[in-house]
Amino acid sequence: MPSNYCSFRKSVPWLILFLETVFIILFYFLVPHYGYDAFIRNISYTDFQDVNNMVIFGFGFFLAFLKRYSFSSTGFNLLIIVLGVQCSILMEGLLFLKDPNEHDPKIITMAAVSMTAVAISSGAVLGKTNPLQLIVMTVVEIIIFHVSRWINKRFLQVQDNISMKHVHLFGAYFGLAVSSRFSEPSPRSEKNASTPKSDLLSMLGTLFLWVFWPSFNSVLADRDKTKAIYNTYFALAVSAVTAFTLSVLTTKDGKFRMIHVHSAALAGGVTVCYTAESIDYPWIAMILGLLASVITILGSFCLKRCLNPALKIHDTSGVHFTFGLPGLLGAVAQVVLSVIKKWTVLPSLGYMVMIYIGAFCLTISVALITGFITGLILNFKLLKIIPVSKYFEDQFYWEFPHLAVGF
Amino acid sequence: MPSNYCSFRKSVPWLILFLETVFIILFYFLVPHYGYDAFIRNISYTDFQDVNNMVIFGFGFFLAFLKRYSFSSTGFNLLIIVLGVQCSILMEGLLFLKDPNEHDPKIITMAAVSMTAVAISSGAVLGKTNPLQLIVMTVVEIIIFHVSRWINKRFLQVQDNISMKHVHLFGAYFGLAVSSRFSEPSPRSEKNASTPKSDLLSMLGTLFLWVFWPSFNSVLADRDKTKAIYNTYFALAVSAVTAFTLSVLTTKDGKFRMIHVHSAALAGGVTVCYTAESIDYPWIAMILGLLASVITILGSFCLKRCLNPALKIHDTSGVHFTFGLPGLLGAVAQVVLSVIKKWTVLPSLGYMVMIYIGAFCLTISVALITGFITGLILNFKLLKIIPVSKYFEDQFYWEFPHLAVGF
Amino acid sequence: MPSNYCSFRKSVPWLILFLETVFIILFYFLVPHYGYDAFIRNISYTDFQDVNNMVIFGFGFFLAFLKRYSFSSTGFNLLIIVLGVQCSILMEGLLFLKDPNEHDPKIITMAAVSMTAVAISSGAVLGKTNPLQLIVMTVVEIIIFHVSRWINKRFLQVQDNISMKHVHLFGAYFGLAVSSRFSEPSPRSEKNASTPKSDLLSMLGTLFLWVFWPSFNSVLADRDKTKAIYNTYFALAVSAVTAFTLSVLTTKDGKFRMIHVHSAALAGGVTVCYTAESIDYPWIAMILGLLASVITILGSFCLKRCLNPALKIHDTSGVHFTFGLPGLLGAVAQVVLSVIKKWTVLPSLGYMVMIYIGAFCLTISVALITGFITGLILNFKLLKIIPVSKYFEDQFYWEFPHLAVGF
Repeated sequence: MPSNYCSFRKSVPWLILFLETVFIILFYFLVPHYGYDAFIRNISYTDFQDVNNMVIFGFGFFLAFLKRYSFSSTGFNLLIIVLGVQCSILMEGLLFLKDPNEHDPKIITMAAVSMTAVAISSGAVLGKTNPLQLIVMTVVEIIIFHVSRWINKRFLQVQDNISMKHVHLFGAYFGLAVSSRFSEPSPRSEKNASTPKSDLLSMLGTLFLWVFWPSFNSVLADRDKTKAIYNTYFALAVSAVTAFTLSVLTTKDGKFRMIHVHSAALAGGVTVCYTAESIDYPWIAMILGLLASVITILGSFCLKRCLNPALKIHDTSGVHFTFGLPGLLGAVAQVVLSVIKKWTVLPSLGYMVMIYIGAFCLTISVALITGFITGLILNFKLLKIIPVSKYFEDQFYWEFPHLAVGF
Repeated sequence: MPSNYCSFRKSVPWLILFLETVFIILFYFLVPHYGYDAFIRNISYTDFQDVNNMVIFGFGFFLAFLKRYSFSSTGFNLLIIVLGVQCSILMEGLLFLKDPNEHDPKIITMAAVSMTAVAISSGAVLGKTNPLQLIVMTVVEIIIFHVSRWINKRFLQVQDNISMKHVHLFGAYFGLAVSSRFSEPSPRSEKNASTPKSDLLSMLGTLFLWVFWPSFNSVLADRDKTKAIYNTYFALAVSAVTAFTLSVLTTKDGKFRMIHVHSAALAGGVTVCYTAESIDYPWIAMILGLLASVITILGSFCLKRCLNPALKIHDTSGVHFTFGLPGLLGAVAQVVLSVIKKWTVLPSLGYMVMIYIGAFCLTISVALITGFITGLILNFKLLKIIPVSKYFEDQFYWEFPHLAVGF
Repeated sequence: MPSNYCSFRKSVPWLILFLETVFIILFYFLVPHYGYDAFIRNISYTDFQDVNNMVIFGFGFFLAFLKRYSFSSTGFNLLIIVLGVQCSILMEGLLFLKDPNEHDPKIITMAAVSMTAVAISSGAVLGKTNPLQLIVMTVVEIIIFHVSRWINKRFLQVQDNISMKHVHLFGAYFGLAVSSRFSEPSPRSEKNASTPKSDLLSMLGTLFLWVFWPSFNSVLADRDKTKAIYNTYFALAVSAVTAFTLSVLTTKDGKFRMIHVHSAALAGGVTVCYTAESIDYPWIAMILGLLASVITILGSFCLKRCLNPALKIHDTSGVHFTFGLPGLLGAVAQVVLSVIKKWTVLPSLGYMVMIYIGAFCLTISVALITGFITGLILNFKLLKIIPVSKYFEDQFYWEFPHLAVGF
């Protein structure tokens, strides 16, 4: 361990400094004076702040459920979000700001929104990657995510707002693909577990995300923000209620399981993201919320029993069923609802459905393939893969002076 | 226990699913397309979000002070709020939306505000009810609360905004009446206590409620929101300061007691609720805050010693002195301030005072009587009353895989 | 101890009641009816709420890192903020509201902003002062802070907004000067330490402060709020990233140290405060953030090793390097950036630089001298100085019924 650790010590700061220098230089060249004013002029600060609250505070504590990994969960989340958001602003600037006149005033908010993908992916590999690997993963993922959006825009004429709605799906499947390249922790590992206190901290993060989710979906709406807000609220409400129902039905003693509540309460918000602004009746949002909760809890049951062991994927915080499956359901719901709504205009319907399905398949494929490749890269010896015995361990990365005087 | 528990398992999910189905069907019939747009069009999202933050996050953690009941406090709070808010929207729609043209744009926000009553009542029976009973209580309470407001409106011509200000009083006395029908926990029960960690979590919730309380009162103000905000702030500030003073004066060793700070810091906000928008000088709000704090702390002293043992009421989180007594004070202050203000217009004065007192007596009576009946209903065997030995115990409802590896 | 404690009991509540009475009477005389309306009319409630969130919730938990002092950290923070804010409103009213027509609509928000100075100073003496001393310190500090701003305005023609930006510097150096008059805790004191749980709570406060810091700087900006927000965000992002880098480089084993992340992540926001609205390119804000982080972490290293032992200053929560040094850097950066920007207009340049440096030196000198005197006053026997052995101990001030049943 010492030699391994020394090399870790040698590389992390220089990698961070290198990236920061590159970012500052790129900002110097890419954001001219008049550009900066245009850049920030019409952003809604409330939107930006809400998204920021979610990715920094909400996800930081949502992921803090491992008993010995809470420093790393909140700390590394802060690190990769603030690093990634700079990278994301640059990528948005490069790919979407060709003409400063047709400029999107939401560029910084969108950069914060796209960090959700990174936060989700980091949930899949939580506790198994060192900071070096996390940083590389963040930068690679955010670049690929924007390239994938750019392809969507260029070749499928998908609008920026709509391609951004794939952020949960992209994050979840990218993370899963990366995770498949890491060794699984020993099933008897007692560190891969939560305590009542850490579950409660995670509940704090979950409630924070839950309360701010309507803002998140309204940021992604381009026309009817109000509708997006209240449809999301109704979906979230029903999915939280359903989470309790299904938790009792699926556990052995008929008790509630905290992890079910954490995942399924948010599922409604993920699912309704695609259709939040176009749903015309609250009951449709409510049914989507109910289905999202069902798919999440059944998914968590099936995935853990069948799929994950078969594919040898270890998904620490269950991003597959928390964000992946509800995202899939949302994408399908979008197609179904569009078909129902525009049934009368048959000719354009087929084309639209094709575009939706195309964008969605493209995004998932890109996420899976590049995630797999990223997983391979992260396992290069250069990046100091950590031994399985050191998984889920704060003390491997953080000073613990507390130990001397008792935990 | 097993047989009891099995039946609990059988009933909770089906009750929740039944309610959700009913709610979705009612939403289907009650909210037509044009109605939905009108429904949500002019809501202030900031107001809605602040209230939401308070009822979901604030109360969730405010109630999390019991040492072995923090999962249930935050979890069940989420469950009953999201279930109740749907019920509340439907009730508001049924009772107050006769004519879609004279439509109140704040209907969803008001539904969230009225959930405060449920959160407060659940504080009185915290740890003594199972989820089945909580859900029944929530639905019954929210229906009765809206019926009581409707009676206020119909027979006393009280405006919707003003009848909503009784939300704390109604919640506190309904909860107390329900609580009087439950057996008291053993006075030596070591589970009915807090730990320093859980008290700190509760402080987190309290500070959150404290910061957002001005928003809450401004939502209930119909004319002068700005005044409502700053009067509430001044009242809260003085009541927090006074809480520390009185805590030292009333405890045996002259130390501070955390529970005093939790209750009395919020008392100013409850008291000033009725008069926030009509107070013209900050010093009046400050004196109200001071009196609220005094009544809360003296109340906590007297109630625990005299009234509660006499009436055999056990009030887990002290809602009587945290929300009930300051609410009473606020209602009285409203009458006194109106009398002083409109002294010159004697004829209409008497009528107005009558209306105020009538609305207030009506609300309390309805809360006490229906709360008492609800308490009786909750003790039906069908609802699986839990034995006193299982009070205040998370493990009765939640999976605790953590136990295997040590708390 | 008993006798000491009894006298503590005797004095705290009467001091608080005396202050509250004085404040209410002063509010009565100073805020006439028409004045109150003007007082609150044009405040941005969002700004006020964000600042309030920061000083009550953010600083409350930011300071809760001591293992046995979390009740006092959050509780006394609430007490001194709510007490101080009333005093601050009165001082602002007395000193800056001569003519009600040239009235600053931000007076209440500014009062909340100026409480940052008190929160910071209380960090320097955290755990070493009793509530009596804290209250005296709060009142004295807030009066002197406003007098210092008034001198700045009167004699140096510095605008109110700009003199308010010295709030971090004033708080840090006042706190340090006070702290120099208190005996140092024993270096082997095991109570002057954190636990992983308390460090995590402090992380919660830090992330909260981090997220709301852009609002704070935008409140202090008088022209270009949008620019202030995003420049602050960029500076904070880079300083958080750099915190991780330097933490690895400066600790012995190359591990991260939580306290570095807490301090340095916020440093960027403190530094950029002075120049947030006048920076025209994001890369300048980013470089300031980077420098702020460097100065904070190097400062924490040097101060603890060299300066503090030499001067016998014990700075519990490291306010010198968290707020003092980055504030100094920010003040210097303001001068440098102004010189670069207005290079062409030489005559007025020299005068402006003089004013900047004068205001800055004046503020620091006032803070140091009055802080020192306040420290002397706080050591009067009348104020019941607490023995070193009772430092950092919640149980000295708070009831701990929990102890009976185990911690």
